[in-house]
Amino acid sequence: MSEDPRNDFRQQALDYHALPTPGKIEIALTKPADSAKDLALAYSPGVAEPVREIAQNVENVYKYTSKGNMVAVISNGTAILGLGNLGPMASKPVMEGKSLLFKRFAGLDSIDIEVKHRTIDEFIDTVANISDTFGGINLEDIKAPDCFEIERRLIERCDVPVFHDDQHGTAIVTAAGMLNAIELQGKELKDARIVCLGAGAAAIACMELLIKCGAMREKIYMLDRKGVIHTRRDDLNEYKELFANNTDMRTLEDVIEGADLFLGVSGPNLLEPESLKLMADNPIVFACSNPDPEIKPELAHAVRSDLIMGTGRSDYPNQVNNVLCFPFIFRGALDVRASEINDEMKLAAVDAIRQLAKEEVPADVITAAGVESLTFGKDYIIPKPMDPRLLPRVAKAVAQAAVDSGVARIDLPENYMV
Amino acid sequence: MSEDPRNDFRQQALDYHALPTPGKIEIALTKPADSAKDLALAYSPGVAEPVREIAQNVENVYKYTSKGNMVAVISNGTAILGLGNLGPMASKPVMEGKSLLFKRFAGLDSIDIEVKHRTIDEFIDTVANISDTFGGINLEDIKAPDCFEIERRLIERCDVPVFHDDQHGTAIVTAAGMLNAIELQGKELKDARIVCLGAGAAAIACMELLIKCGAMREKIYMLDRKGVIHTRRDDLNEYKELFANNTDMRTLEDVIEGADLFLGVSGPNLLEPESLKLMADNPIVFACSNPDPEIKPELAHAVRSDLIMGTGRSDYPNQVNNVLCFPFIFRGALDVRASEINDEMKLAAVDAIRQLAKEEVPADVITAAGVESLTFGKDYIIPKPMDPRLLPRVAKAVAQAAVDSGVARIDLPENYMV
Repeated sequence: MSEDPRNDFRQQALDYHALPTPGKIEIALTKPADSAKDLALAYSPGVAEPVREIAQNVENVYKYTSKGNMVAVISNGTAILGLGNLGPMASKPVMEGKSLLFKRFAGLDSIDIEVKHRTIDEFIDTVANISDTFGGINLEDIKAPDCFEIERRLIERCDVPVFHDDQHGTAIVTAAGMLNAIELQGKELKDARIVCLGAGAAAIACMELLIKCGAMREKIYMLDRKGVIHTRRDDLNEYKELFANNTDMRTLEDVIEGADLFLGVSGPNLLEPESLKLMADNPIVFACSNPDPEIKPELAHAVRSDLIMGTGRSDYPNQVNNVLCFPFIFRGALDVRASEINDEMKLAAVDAIRQLAKEEVPADVITAAGVESLTFGKDYIIPKPMDPRLLPRVAKAVAQAAVDSGVARIDLPENYMV
Repeated sequence: MSEDPRNDFRQQALDYHALPTPGKIEIALTKPADSAKDLALAYSPGVAEPVREIAQNVENVYKYTSKGNMVAVISNGTAILGLGNLGPMASKPVMEGKSLLFKRFAGLDSIDIEVKHRTIDEFIDTVANISDTFGGINLEDIKAPDCFEIERRLIERCDVPVFHDDQHGTAIVTAAGMLNAIELQGKELKDARIVCLGAGAAAIACMELLIKCGAMREKIYMLDRKGVIHTRRDDLNEYKELFANNTDMRTLEDVIEGADLFLGVSGPNLLEPESLKLMADNPIVFACSNPDPEIKPELAHAVRSDLIMGTGRSDYPNQVNNVLCFPFIFRGALDVRASEINDEMKLAAVDAIRQLAKEEVPADVITAAGVESLTFGKDYIIPKPMDPRLLPRVAKAVAQAAVDSGVARIDLPENYMV
C-alpha cells in the first residue's frame, strides 16, 4: 500500500497528530490541586486575594497569573503554509504546531486561537478584545495584504507585543543569513542589486528589513505573478507600491542579469538555471519556497560554483527557518514586558543570529545536524534550529534592545540568560 | 505580623499564585518534540497532512487537534465572585482557577480568556468569532442581566456548547440538593412554598431549574434589594418579571412565614433567626452566600432542630459547590460532541448527583472529608466534591441525555466511563 515513502510520511504525520490523543498540546497544572486546602487556595475563597491585588494594580496580573509567559498564536486560516485560504479550522494543526515550538524552544506557554470573521475590522476587534489575556500575540498565516493592516492596527490597539511571524520572523532570519552571505562574498549590502521573486507578506517584510540593514530600495526588483513591480503599473496595492521600480525591465530574466542577491518566496522551480547563470559574480540565492525551492540546490551549484545558497529545507545547508527567531524574540520581549516588538529589537535579533553563526559550534549540535562539521562559511551562514545557544543569545539581545529603546516595562532580570 | 489567621491565609493564597512561577496553568506537549524528525511531523512539512484532512472534512479537527478536549473559560470580569465589577484582568486568577478545576476533576484541558468590550454585541461577536477554537465554552462571572442575553445569543451562534456556570452549574447542584432535602423532609416540590433571597443570575437560574423539576412558579417569592418581586413593580427587567408574584407581601418577613424552602444567593447574615422561626415545619435553608452565609448554620440549627441546611462552605455539611457539576457536564457534552447543553442534559446531571448521594460512600472519600461517616440524611444530601464517582456518573448521564435528546454528533464511546 505505502511503498511510496511520501505515503509513509503522510501516514506518520497523521498518526502523530491523532495518536494516542488528538492534537499536540494540553493544559497542565503548575500548582498542587490535590487536597481541599489546595483547592481553597486555588479557587474559592483564596483566589479572591490575587483578584483584589490585580484590581488595585493591574500590573499584578503578571505576578499572580500565567499571562506573562503566555503567547497566543492567532490565525484566520486565509494563507495556511503554501496551501492557501482553507479557513480557520484547517489552520488549527499549524497553530498548535507553533505553540509546540514556542514551548519546545523557549519554554513559553502558547495557545492557538482560530478566528472566523466577516471583515478585517471584525478580526481586529476580536483579537484586540482578547489581547490582554496574553503576554504577547503571534499572528500567523493571514493573507496579504490584509496582514499588513491587521498587524499595524493591532499594534496600535494592544498593550502587548503583536508580531506577524510570517513577515518578521522570516525577515529576521533571512536578513541574518543574507548579511553573512554578503560578507562572505566580499560585497556590501548597500551596493547589492537585489531580486525578490514574490510580493507577499514575507517578501515585503524581508525587503523592508534588508533596507533597514542597509540595502538600497532603488536597487531592489520585486516581482509578483505579473512580473516586475514598476512605476507604470496601476494594479499595485499600497504595500507593493513602495517597491515599484522606475525601470523598463519587465521579466525575471530582465532583472536577474547582474543581480547579486536573489530571494525566492514564490513557488517551486521558478528560477531557471539559465537565469542563474546571468547573476553577478559570487551571487547569493535564497530559494525559500517550501518544500520545493525555486531552484534545487544541486542544480544551482552545478551551474554556479561561486554561489552561496539557502533554502527552507532542513536537508540542505543554510536552512532559513523562522524557528531561529520567533520563540526567542517573544522570550526576550515578554521577559522585560515590552509593549511592542520594534525595529531595534528585530535588528538586535538579526545581529545575534548572525554572530552566533560565526562562533564555534558545540559537538552535539553538529552531531544532531547529521554533518561532519559546521564552520562559518558558504555552507554554514545561519545557526542550526537545534542550537541551544539561540535561546540565551537572541532572547537577551532582544530584551536588551527593548530596554534600550524604551519599550520595556521592567528591566532585565538579574543574571538574565547567563 | 500575621497573628490573625486570616492574614496567614491571605499570604498563603498570594504565595500559591505567585510562587514558584506566576499563575496556575501552563501548556504541555502531548507529542514528542525532540528530534528533527519529530518537528518535521509536528510542523513543516508534516502538519500539512492534517490541514488537508480538515480542509476536506471539518469534523477531522476533532481527530487531529486538541479542540475536542479543550474548554474556554471566558469572562469580562463584571461580576467576579462576590467582589463585583473589577474588570477583565482582575478576573484572570478566577478563570485560571476554573481551568485548574476542569483539569483536576474531569481531565479537560481548559484555557481562560478575558474579554474587554464596549457593548454586549461586541462581547458576543468576540466570543462567537473565537468559539470554533474550543470544544465548549464556559462563561463565568458576567453580571446579570447581561449574562442572560449573552448566553442566549451565544448558544444560537456557536456550534459548540455554551454554558454559563454561575447560572446553570449553581442551579444543577442546588436542585440536586433541594430535591434530596425535600424528599428527606417528606414533602413534594410541587407543594413547596419557596423563598428566593437574591434575584441575580444564580437565583433566576436556580428557580427556573426548580420549576423544571416540578416547583410551581406561583409558589415562588423572589426578593431583590428592593424587596419582594411582585406584579405591581415597574422597575423589573424581563428576567425578574417572570417571577413577579401577584401578592401584597413586600418583605422577607412577610414571605418567609410558612415557607418550606429558602434559597439565599444574596449576602451575609440577611436571614434573621426570628425569620427562620416563621418557616413551615421541616424547613430547608440553603444559605449560599460565600464565604459568609445568609445565616450561620450553628445559629440556624439552634432555632430550628427540624431544619435541613446547606451552604457554600466546605467546613459545614451539605456544601453546594458548582464543582460537583461543571467539570462533568462538559466532560459528557464534549465526549459525544454535543452541540449544546440542553435541559435534558441538565436534568440528567441533577438526577445523577442526587442518586450518588444515596449510595454508600467509599472510605477514602469519608476520610478526605474529615468526618466520621457519610450516610444519606440531613447532614449528607449532596456528594462531596472529592468523590471520584462524580466523574463517571455525571458525565455518563449527561452524555447519554445528549444522545437521547438528539444534540450529540457522535454516540457514546464503547465502555464509556466504565
